Amino acid sequence: EDGAALYTAKGCMACHGADGKAPIMPQYPKLAGQNKEYLVAQMKDIKSGARANGMSMVMKPMVASVSDQELDAIAAYLASVK
Amino acid sequence: EDGAALYTAKGCMACHGADGKAPIMPQYPKLAGQNKEYLVAQMKDIKSGARANGMSMVMKPMVASVSDQELDAIAAYLASVK
Repeated sequence: EDGAALYTAKGCMACHGADGKAPIMPQYPKLAGQNKEYLVAQMKDIKSGARANGMSMVMKPMVASVSDQELDAIAAYLASVK
Repeated sequence: EDGAALYTAKGCMACHGADGKAPIMPQYPKLAGQNKEYLVAQMKDIKSGARANGMSMVMKPMVASVSDQELDAIAAYLASVK
């Protein structure tokens, strides 16, 4: 899986900005360089509903179409961004 | 309020590392440079229980002793870290 390509294809960039560096609203987190394990856990928890606070409702439909393997690739890509 | 002093005094550094740059476990998020509004919302949601996923249980007792005014100062400090 190509995490960078998935980051665009799955619509992540629309809110979190290029390379996860420039979210469109301050209520959204920057993702560039974040720990991979943390990113994977949050995406899975939002997908399952274990995390449902705040703006997670915006993420839930986005992550619904992303497989666990794809989540892993996206997280690895974001963690690698300097 | 002095956010940098509170970051140490309230024990944030113990898990998130100096300046929020080096969490002691990959399951914990890096905080340096994160959006202030996002940080405030997460701390308040963990304090209230609105966010309770994953490792939030570790944060909950830490944030219990931090006032909203102090949360705001800590978030402003972390957002300012380069």
